[in-house]
Formats: sequence, structure tokens, C-alpha cells
Amino acid sequence: MTPEREQKLLSVLQRRQPDLTLIAEQVHKPRNISALIRNCDAAGVPEVQVVKPKEGYHNYRGTALGSDRWVDTALHETLDDAVDKVRAQGMKIYAAHFSDEAVPYREVDYTQPCAIIMGAEKEGISPRAAELADAHIIIPMQGVVSSLNVSTAAGIILAEVIDQRLRAGLYDQSRMPIEWIARKMFEARYP
Amino acid sequence: MTPEREQKLLSVLQRRQPDLTLIAEQVHKPRNISALIRNCDAAGVPEVQVVKPKEGYHNYRGTALGSDRWVDTALHETLDDAVDKVRAQGMKIYAAHFSDEAVPYREVDYTQPCAIIMGAEKEGISPRAAELADAHIIIPMQGVVSSLNVSTAAGIILAEVIDQRLRAGLYDQSRMPIEWIARKMFEARYP
Ligand SMILES: C[S@@+](CC[C@H](N)C(=O)[O-])C[C@H]1O[C@@H](n2cnc3c(N)ncnc32)[C@H](O)[C@@H]1O
Ligand SMILES: C[S@@+](CC[C@H](N)C(=O)[O-])C[C@H]1O[C@@H](n2cnc3c(N)ncnc32)[C@H](O)[C@@H]1O
Repeated sequence: MTPEREQKLLSVLQRRQPDLTLIAEQVHKPRNISALIRNCDAAGVPEVQVVKPKEGYHNYRGTALGSDRWVDTALHETLDDAVDKVRAQGMKIYAAHFSDEAVPYREVDYTQPCAIIMGAEKEGISPRAAELADAHIIIPMQGVVSSLNVSTAAGIILAEVIDQRLRAGLYDQSRMPIEWIARKMFEARYP
Repeated sequence: MTPEREQKLLSVLQRRQPDLTLIAEQVHKPRNISALIRNCDAAGVPEVQVVKPKEGYHNYRGTALGSDRWVDTALHETLDDAVDKVRAQGMKIYAAHFSDEAVPYREVDYTQPCAIIMGAEKEGISPRAAELADAHIIIPMQGVVSSLNVSTAAGIILAEVIDQRLRAGLYDQSRMPIEWIARKMFEARYP
């Protein structure tokens, strides 16, 4: 690794957000999981929570462009497992979900510790996830088709997270444990 | 078609934005074109401009979820053709492009007539497109990977367009030619 590359990597790792994650609930297509991971990288999410789809989880790396090396994946058997984990970290939970209670996604304060649940391609968010979430968020749409692709929806919500956290200076402080940063740098040097 | 469906369709067609379009420059993967069209539908873009990829254009409909029925596609042999067309309609042109002059995408006024150029998966925006554009816009990223998927990037920019145009009341007025709306309704009744 060149010194420049090492420097760039260090600065990215220091921008990782310990209090931000995404929960993929039964997202079936490996390509969509991969795209979610790429979006998580862009927003500084250190670890994505994947609730195993019933038909199994395939480790597909087609369109992640290597981002999966820098975003960890925590696999969960059930949604409750994923929710318990992020709650224990003090995160609020927002489900990207079409419901009557849903608020426009830009009205939420994402500078607070939070996890965003994204639903399955066909079924969307499960009733259980809708119930466990602190609030439902929605991206206003003006067209005929009633939903966005799951990774596009995640990208749009995370773009708002980035905007709010940039303005709050949350990417300017190194907030990940120093051991975590050291381990990642080590892994990058000796892959 | 049920009366409810007909009513819903009419209201969507009335929200279409005559002064908003997207130019896909050499976007190669049919799946990405399809995803762009789905995003265009959500933002009320009536017609997307596709500059033919060199290897040809495939009419793929995998993930558009029928949105291609409601978003027209204008095919262009060259980028210049597409640009001439939208300029003649009084649109400003923004290229989603990583360059030193690029401004953060939320700093642009999208309530004015405008076209957004999206670049190819590998090569990005061509030098010609960069030159013809009135400005370059960029979505700030905090990760290792240096770009977003083209349809995710378009979705994020269009989400900002929707936000601005909702606040300006541009989706509350019916601005498409009445003949266009009538033709679309006819096509929907007798497909
Ligand atoms: C293709 S959509 C699922 C559509 C499903 N038929 C439904 O009604 O929920 C997949 C996931 O993307 C997210 N999503 C898509 N469009 C969205 C929007 N406009 N607002 C919020 N979330 C959205 C949601 O998490 C959704 O569960
Ligand atoms: C995968 S990117 C192309 C990357 C290419 N290597 C480059 O350097 O331009 C495909 C297209 O998506 C858009 N795009 C992706 N990420 C973007 C970002 N952060 N800001 C603005 N546009 C972006 C641009 O139009 C780009 O041409």
C-alpha cells in the first residue's frame, strides 16, 4: 500500500460512525444487499445488520466494488436479534415503511444514534418490524409505481443522514475505538 | 380499469413535470437504465433522454416495474443531440460529475427548468458532457469506494428535486399539455 492510500484509508476509518447502522430485513437479492453495503460505505456505516432471508444468505460481491472489505456484515437469524443488538447500543430505530403513521424521511433527527430498517423487495417491512420501530419514515413519491428499489431508497435516506451529520460535524471527529481502527489498518496492510 | 385506478393515474399524469428530465450518457447496463426510469417516474419526469451506448440499446424491463409505460424514452445517437433538445426547451444542464468545479448537489435550484446528466458505469461523464453542462454537481461521500451506483446517485439527486419542487408547489399545478394527458389516459384504457 502506498503512503497516500494508507493515509486516505485512515481518514475514512476515522470518519466511520459508531452510532449509525442499517438493518436489511429479508432482502432477498444478493445484488441488492451488495448495493446496500456500497451505500453504507458512502455514509460511514461500520457494520450492516443482515437478517437472513429464509432461502439463505449468499455472499455475493458483484456490485459492492470492494466496499464489503470496509463495511462489516453481522448476520442475524431473526429481526428481533438485530433489533436487540442495536437497542443495546442505544440506537433509535426507524423503519422505511409505507404506513399511515409514516413521517417524511427528512423530518427525523439522524444525528442521534440510529438504525434504519429496510424491507424486502416484495413484502416490504414485516408487521413485527413495523411494531418494533420507534417511527416509520417515507420518501415522498410522485409517480405511478408505488415504491423505489430498496437500495435506492436506502441511498436517499442515507444521503439525508450524511447531510445532517456533515452539518453537525460528526464526520470531523474520530469516534471509532482506536483498536478497531488499528485492526482495520492491519488487515489492509496484510490482506 | 377501475374508476379509482383511472383517478389515481390522472392525478399522477397531472403531476408530471414538463421542465424536468434526465440524460443517461452511455449507461451500459440495461438494468441500470431500467432503474433510472423507475426513479424518473417517482420524480414526475415525463421523458428520459437516453444517449445510445456504443454497443447498442437493449429494451430491458426487468426492474422498472411497469414504470416504463409511464415514462417515455427518447433515444439519441449522440450526447449533443440530447443536449440540443433540452436546451431548446430552455433547460439548464447539470452533470453529476466528480470534478474540481463540482458543487454539492443540494446547492442547486432545481425548481428552474433543468436536465441532469448521469454518466457511464465505468467511464463516468464524458469530457464533452462536462464541457456542455452549466455546472457539475456532486453527492458528498464519506467512504472508501469513490462512487455510487448510477441509479442510486440519480435517485438521491431526484429526491432533492422532489423536495424542492414539492415546497415550491410545482406538483400541485397541472402543467403538461392537455393533449398529452388525454393521449396517455387513452393508452391506459386501451393498451
Ligand atoms: C420495493 S420496496 C417494497 C414494496 C412493498 N410492496 C411494500 O409495500 O412495502 C422495498 C423496501 O424499500 C424501501 N422503500 C422503497 N420505497 C420507499 C419509499 N418511498 N419510502 C420509504 N421506504 C421505501 C422500504 O424499506 C421497502 O420495504
Ligand atoms: C459509477 S459512477 C462512475 C464512476 C467513474 N469512475 C467516475 O469517476 O466518474 C456512474 C455515474 O453515477 C453518478 N455518480 C455516482 N456517484 C456520484 C456522486 N457521489 N456524485 C455525483 N454523481 C455520482 C455520475 O453521473 C457517474 O458518472
